[in-house]
Formats: sequence, C-alpha cells, structure tokens
Amino acid sequence: MEGIMRNYLAEFMGTFMLVFLGTGTVTLAKGDTLTIGLAFGLAITVSAYAFGGISGGHFNPAVSTAMLINKRMSMSDFVGYVIAQLLGAIVASGVVRFFVGALELPTTSLGQTDFSKIGAGSAFLFETIITCLFLMVILNVTSAKHGNSNFAGLTIGVTLAFLIIVALNLTGGSLNPARSIGPALFAGGTALSHLWVYILAPLVGAALAAFASRALGSEDK
Amino acid sequence: MEGIMRNYLAEFMGTFMLVFLGTGTVTLAKGDTLTIGLAFGLAITVSAYAFGGISGGHFNPAVSTAMLINKRMSMSDFVGYVIAQLLGAIVASGVVRFFVGALELPTTSLGQTDFSKIGAGSAFLFETIITCLFLMVILNVTSAKHGNSNFAGLTIGVTLAFLIIVALNLTGGSLNPARSIGPALFAGGTALSHLWVYILAPLVGAALAAFASRALGSEDK
Amino acid sequence: MEGIMRNYLAEFMGTFMLVFLGTGTVTLAKGDTLTIGLAFGLAITVSAYAFGGISGGHFNPAVSTAMLINKRMSMSDFVGYVIAQLLGAIVASGVVRFFVGALELPTTSLGQTDFSKIGAGSAFLFETIITCLFLMVILNVTSAKHGNSNFAGLTIGVTLAFLIIVALNLTGGSLNPARSIGPALFAGGTALSHLWVYILAPLVGAALAAFASRALGSEDK
Amino acid sequence: MEGIMRNYLAEFMGTFMLVFLGTGTVTLAKGDTLTIGLAFGLAITVSAYAFGGISGGHFNPAVSTAMLINKRMSMSDFVGYVIAQLLGAIVASGVVRFFVGALELPTTSLGQTDFSKIGAGSAFLFETIITCLFLMVILNVTSAKHGNSNFAGLTIGVTLAFLIIVALNLTGGSLNPARSIGPALFAGGTALSHLWVYILAPLVGAALAAFASRALGSEDK
Repeated sequence: MEGIMRNYLAEFMGTFMLVFLGTGTVTLAKGDTLTIGLAFGLAITVSAYAFGGISGGHFNPAVSTAMLINKRMSMSDFVGYVIAQLLGAIVASGVVRFFVGALELPTTSLGQTDFSKIGAGSAFLFETIITCLFLMVILNVTSAKHGNSNFAGLTIGVTLAFLIIVALNLTGGSLNPARSIGPALFAGGTALSHLWVYILAPLVGAALAAFASRALGSEDK
Repeated sequence: MEGIMRNYLAEFMGTFMLVFLGTGTVTLAKGDTLTIGLAFGLAITVSAYAFGGISGGHFNPAVSTAMLINKRMSMSDFVGYVIAQLLGAIVASGVVRFFVGALELPTTSLGQTDFSKIGAGSAFLFETIITCLFLMVILNVTSAKHGNSNFAGLTIGVTLAFLIIVALNLTGGSLNPARSIGPALFAGGTALSHLWVYILAPLVGAALAAFASRALGSEDK
Repeated sequence: MEGIMRNYLAEFMGTFMLVFLGTGTVTLAKGDTLTIGLAFGLAITVSAYAFGGISGGHFNPAVSTAMLINKRMSMSDFVGYVIAQLLGAIVASGVVRFFVGALELPTTSLGQTDFSKIGAGSAFLFETIITCLFLMVILNVTSAKHGNSNFAGLTIGVTLAFLIIVALNLTGGSLNPARSIGPALFAGGTALSHLWVYILAPLVGAALAAFASRALGSEDK
Repeated sequence: MEGIMRNYLAEFMGTFMLVFLGTGTVTLAKGDTLTIGLAFGLAITVSAYAFGGISGGHFNPAVSTAMLINKRMSMSDFVGYVIAQLLGAIVASGVVRFFVGALELPTTSLGQTDFSKIGAGSAFLFETIITCLFLMVILNVTSAKHGNSNFAGLTIGVTLAFLIIVALNLTGGSLNPARSIGPALFAGGTALSHLWVYILAPLVGAALAAFASRALGSEDK
C-alpha cells in the first residue's frame, strides 16, 4: 500500500482505537469516571504516537475540519480522512456490540452519547465549548511556532480525557462526530435522535477554534 | 494580534483551563480525590505544552510573583499577566456556574475553596507551605542551569495534582489566588470571607520559594 | 556476562516485572479495574525504559513472534527470548504464590486468566483482536520510518493497560502466553484447561498484526 | 550556597516531598490504593526532574548505598546525602504530624510502616525483593550504556508507585529507610519496634541489585 491510502488506514486505526477502548471501557469494563475519561483520552495519545507519524493523527472529523480551515490539509484529503474515521468508529462499535452480546449485557447500552439531563440548547453549547477548547490545545501544541511536537500526543490525549470527565453527566462528552455516530448506529433510540447535536456542535467548536487560534499565532511559521 | 497581547491571551486560556477542568470535575463530574487532583494538575500540564511556548505558562498570580521577584519577568508584564489570569478564572467560573444550573445542581457549590475544618492560622500556614513547595519545583525544573525544560510541564502539573490531593480536606488546595477568586465571586459565603487567606498565603509562599530556590542555584546561568 | 545472555536476562527481568506487578496488584493489593490495568501496562513501560535498551524489550512471546515474522530478530534469538520470558513469568508467579500464602489468602487465586463468562470461541476471538491491536501499536510506534522511539515505552504500556481494562470481564486480558502460563502452573484448574486459548490466540493476533502493519509501512526504512 | 551543600539541600527537598506527599496522602487525604502508590512514586518523579539535576536525585539511603557500591558516588558524599535524606523525612513527618493534629485526626496514624499481617521474616524478604527490583530499574535506566536519561525520572517513580501498591497489605511498602524513620519517630509503637526491618532490608536489596545489575552491563561505559 502506498501514499494516501496509508493515511486513511492510519486514521481508521486511530478512530477504531478511540471507540473500542473508550466505549469498551464504558460497556464491557464498567469503568468509573476517571477510567472512562482516561480510556478515551489515552487512546488518542497512543494512536498519535503509533499512527500519527503516518497521517498526522486526527482521528476525528472535527479535528480534520479545523485543519482544513487553517489550510493544514487539502479538501480531497479531508474527504478521505472523514470517511476513514467514520468507518473506524462504526467497525469498532460493531465489535463492541458483538462482545456486549457475548457477555449477555443489554445491547441498548453501547457507550453511545445522548443528553437526557439537560436541554438540546445547553448540550449544543457545551459540546461547542469543549470541542473549541480541545482544538485550541491541538492547534497550539502542534504549532510550528510555539508548539511542542514531542509532547503533543500526550497533551492532546490528556486534554480530551479531562474534558470528557467534566462532560460525562451533561452530554457524555463526544467532541467527535465519528465517536457518536459509531455507537448510535447500533444503539438507536435517543443516541440517533440526539445525533445532530454531536455532529454539528463539534464542527462549530472546531471552526471557532481554527479562527481563535490564529490570534495566538498558531498558524505562524 | 501581536506580541504581548498574545501572552495575555495565553495566560487567559491556561487559567481558564485550570478552573474549568478543576472545578468542573468537582461540581459537574463529582470526581473522587484522585480525579480532582489530576484534573487541576494536568490542566496546567496540557496548558503549559499548548500555551506555555507563548507566555511561559504561569496561569497563577503566585507563579508570576515568584518570577517577578527573581527577575524572570518585568513589572509591566506582571500586571498584564495577573489581570489575564483573573479574567480567565472568572470567565471559567461563570461557565461552570451556568452548567451547574443546567444540571439543576445547587449553585452554592462551585468548587470554591474554604477552610471549615481548621482555623485560619493553620489554613494560612498550610497554603503557604504547599505553594512554597510548588514554586520550589517550578523554579528548579525551569532553571537554565539544572532544569529539564522538556519535562517541566509534566513535572509542574503532577506536583500540583498531589499537593492538592494532600490539601483537599484542609484548605481545598488552592495555591493560586485566581483559582480561588473565580468561584468565590459566584459562590459567595465562606468562599468570599475566607478569600484573603487564598490571596495572601500563596503570595507569601511564592516569595519564600523565590528566595530559597536561589540557594539551590535556580537562577544561575 | 556478555552479549546475548544479557538480552535473555533483560527479557527475564521485564517479564518478571509484568507478572509480579500485574498479578501482585490483583492478588496482594486487590486493586480496582484501573489499578490492575495500569499495573500490567506500566510494568511494560518501566521495563522498556530500564531493560529495553539491552534486549529491545519484548517481554512477551507474542511480541517476539511478530518481530520474528517481520525479520526484526533471528530464529535463534527467538528461542532464547521465549525461554527467558517463560522463566521470568514462572518465577514471578512463584514469588506471588509465596506471599499470597504469607497473607493467608486463598492460593487458588493467583491472578491467572480464564474465561468463565463467555465461550472459548468468543474468548479466542477477543484475545486475537486485542493482541493484534497491541502489536499494530508496537510495530508502528517502533517503526524506523514513522515511529517515535522516545515515547515508544510509554505508548506500548498505556495501550496494554487499556486493552486489559476492556478485556478484564471477558478473558482477563492476557495478550501474552508467558503472563498466562506463569500463574496457571501454580493455580491449576480452569487456568490450565483454558491455557491453550491464551497461548494460541495471542500468537495468531501477533501474526496478523505483523502482516497488517506492513500495509502501514511499519517495516519500511 | 555552593557545591556540595546544594546537593545536600536537593536531597533534603526530594526526600521531604516523598514523605510529605506520600504519608500526607495516607493520613490527610485518606487516598485509595492507587492514589497512595502514585503519591509516593510521582513525588520521586517530580523531585527527580526538579532537583535531580543538582544531586542526581537519590532521595533514599538505599539508592545511595547502591550508588556507593557501584562507585557512582564517594563515601564522603554518601554520609552527607544520607543525613540530608533523614532530615528531609523527619521534617516532613513533623509537618504532617502538625496538620493531622489540626484536623483532629488520631496522631498515632502518620503513614508509618509496620507489618502486622505477616511475620518479620516474610516482611524482611519482601522488602528486600522489592527494593532489589527498584534498584535494578534505577541502575539500568540511568546506565550510561543502555539507559534513557530523559525518561529516567518517570520510569523510577512509576516503578516505585506500583511496587508500593503491591506491598501495601504486606509491609506498607517502604523500600527506603528514611521514609520509614521519619513517621516512626512521631508515631512510635510497632513503627519503631519494626523499624529495623525497614532499615536493613532495603540496604540488603540495594546491595544485591548493585551486584546483579553489573551482569546486565549497567556500569559499562
């Protein structure tokens, strides 16, 4: 396999790891708040170090959106990246679904995201804010001017972990359309009917961060 | 945006992350001791790697005080840094306050600091000691002579995490006037009447560390 | 001691650390899910940094199998590595067994792996999948072309930690024939009768990863 | 302050941090198993990065003993290091004792080490084994030939964390005479009468590791 296909495969692998480790910790391991947050976050950390050298390590359509806006990737790559991310998340959710069944656990709980405790407006606002913060960190820690490329994978994953921990009781903490689409396809119910929030809000947050980060000089050479 | 304004925005972002992730973990996530300590501490770690390349990554008026005393920053920068830090903390507390309301949780619990179990003298002494230890670590790990700049962000955040864990039952573990002022403005009550301790004690501890660290050679070239 | 014998001793030490810290945390410390996962995973991390500079830091016959398939090691080294790994695991289990006895805990619980909640087919499939993911991470983070050698030890250990966390309720999370053989020899029972799954499935997963990683360019110079 | 006195002060600071964060987490924070292990271990990690550039970062008479045996330090430095380590531990225990009193907690529980569940022989053997493992990791990760100096602080602290976790129910997990002497002087009782084990066993384990590590080439240039 050559060139761009390797990038797509790397994006598939990283997004698979995120959804497999993250929702697997929720459903199969029944982890506590810290364990769940760390599982999602550190899945990104390890995938960034293992596969990020190939594709840049987005593993999230919202991240790719910010990279596209700030001209760090082309539109044609963007489409391929997002398709690979969605496939990675969906296949991971299928695998988790299979083993939830093997353990005879309820197959309606697959680590999906929904917002039962707050309104759609608050949920949309919260996912927008936390994805904007997430992308502010990503765009600056990977900045050619003032970032730290060696510690970028650790920084990005730990940031995601604690943003998800804060978000768990409000929205479940998605920050990533692929991470919400995967489980929703298998769980149905409110995960599907609430899905528009988890697709749109992260994209809005990412776009805001793409512009805001320029004020910090994230795109300066 | 150019020059010094970027530094102020970086300080705003880092202090926002500290208060948002830290007090959000206390109020919205109801995290356990380890989760709370790590949320505050690792918020500093990730902000140091993401935004520290711009401003140096103080995110705390006590840290800036020690840097001022040891001539690592100018007085005019100091004033701007502290204002940015206070604004970051206050805005973060406003956001947390909004979502505490959205979850219909009591808005008197916003992750504020107070000392109900011990006297003001013990609280003052404890916050002075732990902030002094915190600054001893910061000034030496960032020392041009014997520090380790790559691991400084990780070292400083992990130190804060465990100092806060030890402090939780005594004073709540502030070590940072901005971190206490933000929630106190929204929570009122003892958080406001005890606030003087959380403003003065960290500054005293930082000043002590600024002098003591020189004995270790932290300011040598 | 010279040359290759040092490699074997390094492999013995790392596999000893894995089984001692991992199964010791299960049996002697009665750690929770997160603690158990981190104990196994970070045992690999610290051994990789301490002893990996000598032997490459496999500490697992499945890892050595993938390295053999992808020509990163010779067949004669492979045999010595696997013997050293098995000895390290067995001695560690003997030590744990001794202190489980000293605490007067039941000596039938030695942190062994078995699958009582799911069928052998599901267990085999799950161990194959997670070992394949584990090796995909290892082979790519250590890739001469796109890996990150400095963070490889951290990446590999954290990956193992969360794969084990997801696996605990299904198969116990072995991913390593040596890790399962050591305790099984002392615990007997289902740990012995289920052992074939924990020997074969990781080897199959490792072989799959050895081939699949080439598509990502893991073996390119 | 010049030269060797700075080394002693650095050793005082690191050992103070170890006992303050570690036994403070036990007594003031009442942390769970993982939190306690990480508090002791990561205290060493952060002190190694902050103060290790000055003194080498021993913070433990057993570590200094192994360094003396393997000629990495002189006998005159050794005496000064151990005195500084003991003073750091004792002052830290005094501070913890004061705030345990301020919280009106029983001042007989100061995070001291004793072995009530197993015999003195088993306790001696266990402390010898875990200190030997600890020093094997230290001597090899800091080896000029095959170590990794950047990740040494992280590796050593994480190793200590999980060795302590495994040891908590057996011996409390000392691995360090200074760490046991400090609290024992204030707690008295079995902490004092059992103290000989926590002084002798770590020294025996360190001496064994000093010799054994040479087989791995830890002292080769």
